[in-house]
Amino acid sequence: MYPNDGFRELGRRECLGLLARVPVGRIVHTRQALPAVLPVNFRLDPDGAVVLRTSAASELVRAIDGVVVAFEADDVDVVAQAGWSVVVTGRAAVVTDPAECRRLTRTGPVCWVPSPCEVFVRIEPALVTGRELVAGRSMYGVDLGASG
Amino acid sequence: MYPNDGFRELGRRECLGLLARVPVGRIVHTRQALPAVLPVNFRLDPDGAVVLRTSAASELVRAIDGVVVAFEADDVDVVAQAGWSVVVTGRAAVVTDPAECRRLTRTGPVCWVPSPCEVFVRIEPALVTGRELVAGRSMYGVDLGASG
Repeated sequence: MYPNDGFRELGRRECLGLLARVPVGRIVHTRQALPAVLPVNFRLDPDGAVVLRTSAASELVRAIDGVVVAFEADDVDVVAQAGWSVVVTGRAAVVTDPAECRRLTRTGPVCWVPSPCEVFVRIEPALVTGRELVAGRSMYGVDLGASG
Repeated sequence: MYPNDGFRELGRRECLGLLARVPVGRIVHTRQALPAVLPVNFRLDPDGAVVLRTSAASELVRAIDGVVVAFEADDVDVVAQAGWSVVVTGRAAVVTDPAECRRLTRTGPVCWVPSPCEVFVRIEPALVTGRELVAGRSMYGVDLGASG
């Protein structure tokens, strides 16, 4: 977190409550030694873990399985000068427990287009941090404003 | 980029055109050896560079000045099953040329709340990549769907 930047830090419970409101977030990881970020949809598990669903053969799985990643979601209204951002940081791992897979098939992300060989990936909520943008204050030290 | 994931790759011109439509994106970098991601507002320079404005004393500046970062912006409509994501990857650097600072003061991000000791940070568009979500297809290998 970046202290003294005029932002209100959110508690873990607040962060998870906000995260549960949005359908899409972004996986931040490293690919070929460069920072990489991919929007994905997700479900929040009761324990705060972020659950993704993807093809077992996807490069995304190879890139993040067993790796510490950050998962970010936010909602910023530039007109209202208000918003929030939550980041879950933890190890991503393909779910291999059959009972867990059955549970996530019922409760996990629902596919628009079902495809074979899907797997679930869980991101453990080792660190859950978030900030609320207070109207008129700078966001993460960067002044929000009209852009174009 | 992740090939064969059912996504349409966007050309550099398309990417920059989409990026110019949105006021807020996310800086992806590393902080204390962990992936970090921060929403910020920005302006797109004519050459495709991403321009941020922040306090010269901010930890964000110390974290990214002289470092290769990724800057991501997206717009995903889960109901319409459509959207896009663009990533600019390149070196971030505090702008120190007086003429450039004067130019960016006129054309760069406008602050909601002006504050002293602001600096501009430019992210060079060394790599500009993007994807368009085609309705009904998986996004980055992760099936978008209803979440909660």
